[in-house]
Order: sequence, then C-alpha cells, then structure tokens
Amino acid sequence: MADDERVELVDLVETNDLTGIRLWLAEHPPYEIADELARMDSHLAIIPFRLLDKDRELEVFEELDPGQQQAILMGLRDSAFRELLEQMDPDDRARLIGEAPAKIATRALAGLSPAERKMTAALLGYPEESVGRYMTPETVILHRDLQVGRALEVIRAKGAEAETVYTLPVVDDGRRLAGTVQLSDLVVNGPDTVLKDVVDVFAPRVRATEPAEGAARLMQEANLVALPVVDSEDRFVGLLTFDDALELIEAADSEDIARQSGASPVTGHYAAVGVLRLARARSVWLLLLIVTSTLTVNVMQGFEGVLEEVTALALFVPMLTGTGGNVGSQSATAIVRALAVGEVRIRDLPRVAWKESRVGLLLGLMLASIALLIGSFLVGGRIAVAVALSVTAVCTWAAIIGSSMPLLARRAGVDPAVVSAPLVSTLVDATGLLIYFTIARAVLGI
Amino acid sequence: MADDERVELVDLVETNDLTGIRLWLAEHPPYEIADELARMDSHLAIIPFRLLDKDRELEVFEELDPGQQQAILMGLRDSAFRELLEQMDPDDRARLIGEAPAKIATRALAGLSPAERKMTAALLGYPEESVGRYMTPETVILHRDLQVGRALEVIRAKGAEAETVYTLPVVDDGRRLAGTVQLSDLVVNGPDTVLKDVVDVFAPRVRATEPAEGAARLMQEANLVALPVVDSEDRFVGLLTFDDALELIEAADSEDIARQSGASPVTGHYAAVGVLRLARARSVWLLLLIVTSTLTVNVMQGFEGVLEEVTALALFVPMLTGTGGNVGSQSATAIVRALAVGEVRIRDLPRVAWKESRVGLLLGLMLASIALLIGSFLVGGRIAVAVALSVTAVCTWAAIIGSSMPLLARRAGVDPAVVSAPLVSTLVDATGLLIYFTIARAVLGI
Repeated sequence: MADDERVELVDLVETNDLTGIRLWLAEHPPYEIADELARMDSHLAIIPFRLLDKDRELEVFEELDPGQQQAILMGLRDSAFRELLEQMDPDDRARLIGEAPAKIATRALAGLSPAERKMTAALLGYPEESVGRYMTPETVILHRDLQVGRALEVIRAKGAEAETVYTLPVVDDGRRLAGTVQLSDLVVNGPDTVLKDVVDVFAPRVRATEPAEGAARLMQEANLVALPVVDSEDRFVGLLTFDDALELIEAADSEDIARQSGASPVTGHYAAVGVLRLARARSVWLLLLIVTSTLTVNVMQGFEGVLEEVTALALFVPMLTGTGGNVGSQSATAIVRALAVGEVRIRDLPRVAWKESRVGLLLGLMLASIALLIGSFLVGGRIAVAVALSVTAVCTWAAIIGSSMPLLARRAGVDPAVVSAPLVSTLVDATGLLIYFTIARAVLGI
Repeated sequence: MADDERVELVDLVETNDLTGIRLWLAEHPPYEIADELARMDSHLAIIPFRLLDKDRELEVFEELDPGQQQAILMGLRDSAFRELLEQMDPDDRARLIGEAPAKIATRALAGLSPAERKMTAALLGYPEESVGRYMTPETVILHRDLQVGRALEVIRAKGAEAETVYTLPVVDDGRRLAGTVQLSDLVVNGPDTVLKDVVDVFAPRVRATEPAEGAARLMQEANLVALPVVDSEDRFVGLLTFDDALELIEAADSEDIARQSGASPVTGHYAAVGVLRLARARSVWLLLLIVTSTLTVNVMQGFEGVLEEVTALALFVPMLTGTGGNVGSQSATAIVRALAVGEVRIRDLPRVAWKESRVGLLLGLMLASIALLIGSFLVGGRIAVAVALSVTAVCTWAAIIGSSMPLLARRAGVDPAVVSAPLVSTLVDATGLLIYFTIARAVLGI
C-alpha cells in the first residue's frame, strides 16, 4: 500500500475504475477529495462525487468553490440536488445561490424546505462581501438569566455543530446581544452560576452589513474563534466562525496578490480556470498600461535629437527603467501590505512618503555606484556619470510615487492593491526617462 | 466623548499626560493597545506599558512581536521582567528567547521557575519555524478509557485556557495519540460514555519537527480549531491552536508578498522598522538585478549599428520591455500563489507552461494590435509591424518564463516566492530585446 499516494484519482476516473475510485475515496479525507475534484473537468468530477457516501458527499461538496458546486449540481438528478442543498450550511448555500446563474438559483430555492428557504433568503438580503453573507444564523442562543447547568442542557438538546458552540452568544430581553461566553466557561463554572455573571460584555461584535474581510481581520487580531454578528438595533443575528474567517483572509490575500501583479482576482482552483478566463482577468490592466506606456514613446521622441547625436544613451534605457520600476514596486508592495494588515493609515501619508524617499535615496546611491562602474567600463566617462545621477534621482522618485499612490488610492476609496507593480513601473518609466534625458543633456552639454 | 478615537496614545505619551494615558488604556482592548505601542519608539512605549494593570500587561505583551517584546523587557526592573516572562505562554516565551540576543536570553532563562525553564528549553529544542516552536505544550490530556463525566471534571480542575480545550487530545497507554474529541462532544454525550467510543481517530496530526506553515495550512483546509502534535513515536507533545495558525498564515503571506517584490521579508510593524533596515531588506535583489540588467546594455550594444541606422527603433524599447515584464510578472505571481495554497504541484510543470503560453499568446495578440495602432500613428508602417510582432512573441515568451521559474525553484528546493516580479521583468527585458531587434532586422531588411 506504500505507493497509494501515487495513484491519482483522475487516472482512476479516466479509466473508469469504479472499485479503484471507491478505495481511493475511502482512504482520503474530504478536503483532499475536494482538492482532487477541483482539478478535474466537471463532467469527470461528477463520477467520483456520485460514488461518495451520503454523509461525506456533503462534507466534500462544502469544500468546493461556488463555481465547482454549480457544475456538480448540474450533473445531479433532481432528488439528489434537493437533498444536497437542504443539508448545506445556510451561509454556504446563500453564497452558492447568490453567485449561480438564474436557472440554477431558481431550481435551488424552489427545492428547499420553507424553513431553509426563508433562512437563505434572509442571508441573500445582505450586501455582497458583507458579514451577513458569511455568518451562520443557526446557532444556540442563551439568555443572560439562564444558569450554566440549564445552558449546557440547551446545547445538548440542540446538538449543534462544533464550530458554532465554542463561543456562544448571550442575549437579553429583545434578543439584544449582551456578550459572549466560551463553552469552556460553562464547563468550568458550577451549574448554578448565572450567565450574566460570567458573560464577557466587552467581546467584540460586528454589524451584519459591515465588510466581511474587516471582521475576519478583527477575529485574527483579537484571537477569536467566533464573532457575534448583530443588526442595526444590536440584536443578535448570527456568528462568524473561524473557518469562514480563515477562508476570507486567504481569499483577500489571494486577491491582493493578484491585483499587485495587475490582474483581476480569479476565483476558483487554478487548474480549473480556463485559458480565456485567465487572459481576460489579466487583460484589463495590460491594455491600460500599454496605452499609458505610449507616454514613454512620446518622451523618447521628444529627445530623438539627443538620441541621434549620442546613440549610446539608448543603451541604458532598459536598465534605468527596470531599476526604477523595481524600487517603485518594492515601495508600493510594502505599503499595500502594511495597509491591508492595518499597520499604516491614510493620515500616515507624509511620514510614509518621507521614510520611503530616504529608503529610495539610499538604494539609489548604492545602485548608482554600480551603474557608474558598469557605465565607465562599457561607454566611459560622461555618459556613465549621467546614468549614475539618473539612477539616484529615479530611485528616490520611484520610492515616493510607489509609497504615496496606495495611500492616495485608499483615500479616494479605491482598493490600494490596484496600485500594482506594473502600474508603478509604467508610471515611473515615463517620468524616469524625462529625468534621464534632462540630466544627460545637462551633463553632456547638448 | 465622540472624538475619543482621535486622541492618539503617542500624543498623550509625548506630552507625558499620565491621566490621559490611563484613560486611553482603560478604553481600548489589548490588541489595539499593542498596535499603538508597536508604532512608538521603545523608549516611549515603555511608559504606557508600565501603567497597565497587571493582568492586561500580559495580554498586551503577548500581542507584540518578539523584537518589540525584547525592547519592552529591557526597560523593566528585574522583578517585573521575571514576573512577565513566567506568565507568558510557553510557546511565545520560547520564540522570544530563541530570537533574543544572548544577554536577554540568559537573563530570561535564569529568572524562570524550574518547571517553566524546563518547558521552554524543550520547545527551544525544535528547529526554527517548526511546529514544535509554535505549539502549546500545556494542555489537558485525556486517556481513552476515561468517561465523559470524569473528563469534564479533569478540565474543570485544570481550568485551562479556552483555546486549548476546544479540541482535546485523547491518548492510550504510553501517551500515544489515539485521536481527538471536541469539547462539544463531551457536553453533548452522557457522562457515562467512554472516550474511546467518541474519539475521532481520523483527526489529522503533525510531527513537531514539520514546518509550521504547512501545519497551519492543513488546519485551514480541514477547518481545525486545534491540531494535535506528536513526536516521532506518535506520542502527544502539544497542540497547535487556531490563533497561532492564523498568525503563521498571515506571516507567510506577508513574506511571500515581500519576496514577490524582490525584497527580503522584514519582521515587525512597518512604523517601527527603520530606514536602514528597510533599505537593507530591499538591496540584495536590487543589486543582483542591476548587475543582471547589464545584459540589456550588452544586447543593445550588439545592435548599436541597427539603432544608429533606425533611431526610431529605440522609441519602443521601454514599451516593449515594460509590457513583457508585466505579462511575465502576472504569470509568476499567479503560479507562486497557486503553489503556496497547494493548487499546483511540481509535476504540473508541463501542463502549467502550456496553459500559460496560450494565455501569453492571447494577451500578446491583443496588445500587439494596440501597439500596431500606436506605432503606425507615431512612426508608421514597417517599424510598427516589427513592434507588433515582437510584442506577441515577447508576451508568449514572458508567460512561459514567468510560470516555469517558480515551479523550477520549488523543484530545486528554493522558496518559489523568490521568483519575484522584478526578477522576471529583468530576465524578460534582455531576452525580449534580443527578440525585438532580431525581428526588426528581418522586417526592415537591415
């Protein structure tokens, strides 16, 4: 059995080895099965999915992205379709239905039991990417006058899922959130203790309409396993659990990383995303940037006379624009990340720009000395001096641009991550060339 | 009180307003206090820190980075120093001591009680960045023959911290891990149930010597609130808890993001890191890249004759290298992220390169049409054709390079994130120019 790991599910599916598939499924946990399904075409993925036991089917299904879930649902008979949806967590189901084409969404809502349909509809009422879309509304709710012994009985009777009972909401009359208790508090305290004496009234809470990513980062900062969600009148409406918070943070980081490279975020497993969708996600910024880079052509044209006179100046153009782009991208990346994790705020702009300008100047001086060496060796004297001076100026300038733009974007209400490395490079290219030719003209006296 | 949020702690500290500081501290949760302290110079941060209540002092201290903790410790009297260290979680303390200069480390270990010193020393025995350094060894351990009622009594007697009792390790004779139970399982099942009947024997586990980041990603994939850690003989040695997993994932993402911009990761709060340290972290790759970019100067020199004949060719150099760099960075970023979250593996290299080459070709064709327009308008006919053909070729080539390099790095045992946007851009610059001038010579017949 030692080479079990090397049997790939997709090979078994392609050879239609049903016994092999069953064996493979029995030996792997749900999240690994989901991972393998995500790598396959959906018409193949449906085969092992249908062979799963009833209980594991749901676990695997909930690990898939909404897009993959849709594809699997399309391949199921009506009864299996209904059963699967009915068992899903309300928050996952709401996200699936919210993102599905109208045809699937209608089929899905129609198949639900009235109680589940109502809950899903309520979740769908919250704005996209808000806490309301990700919270779990089905939780145990405890009244503050309850005794610990009775509270444990309530939990026992509900038989709730583990991740929603680690942290329990405590409410007062009118379902207003008083605070939370930990399950461990209930276990540790005597059965006669009244909840209002152990409830943590300072426990953070969020509104259902707030952005989900911010709530997830709050959970991370404050080390919370679950965060109570309230409506505008402070009434408890659900819990955001750590597993959803982890997913939100990973998705937000993936999005930021994609945006940093000038691509729109693509949801879904890399292996499952087609060439056209990848190209589309990356094309918007590339188009904008190539049009912007016409500026560099204009600048070069403006100095065509200088270039004709001293062709050697052209030799250093890629090195100079490249270096400026690199320094600017580093600054931009550092500030975008610092903004994302809350280490820098809009009002820090002057401090940040001042700090980065000194970093850029230091780096510029260091790189200029290398450029001077390379230049002296390859073309000699004066041109090398012009290149070295330009490198210093361009690096300082690039660091200022790269660090200010994310902060200005945030101030303008735009996601700072759109200030991508390619955007900074392109902007620094044009201005850098202007600096270079101006300095070169002065140094060479032309 | 509406503008409370706008009173900054640092202003209160700078004006030495002790009452104001006490008020501010009372009104903010520990993680926000830690965040403010992290923004200050350490000689200032010690002032509000000393004004904290004894219990909150520890909470705030544990939220700080090891570097900030060291600075705070240095400012404390010996008794306060000892007390603080003694109360810290063993895993946090081990990390602090492991990273501290010898002087602090010795002072710290000497001050601990024998029991705490032994535990810290054990944690320090694990390799850096391994699970052993991050796990909590102080947990409740349950024997599989125990009854649920008795297990709850054990937990009650231990009065353990909340995050270590959500998931409880169950062991057999010889302390070998049998599996885990959830605290909620104990609450839901009758007091006479024996643990071996409810223990989840399939619950994932990790070795203490494995990399901590991988364990954290496993917790994320499998939605675990705690992961049991075992030694080489499968004996239980500790728990990795979700709050440490979240921190590990955020740190890993921050590192990847920094590396993607060609900078070494800098630990610590952005505001607390000095200009010199920032410059040093970014300088290594910049130096390497500017030396590498000498290649572009060489290529340009090789075609100096062509350039002298048709100076207009130089005009498009920044646009071409910029576009190639952008496409290559996008591919590299996408693949580095897919590797980090486990969506792509080394053996997928041919599939990935083939997919990305098609993405690159599509993007290239699209961008070439824009370049053709811009070129025809600015310099006309033949040169525009040469530019457009080059854009297509360079984009395809950049996508192949950008997507293969992270996979090749991983295969060579190097962190794929070193394949940064600047590295890809610089490599694509030189080869792209070669492609451009070769095509131009063919099209223009020179």
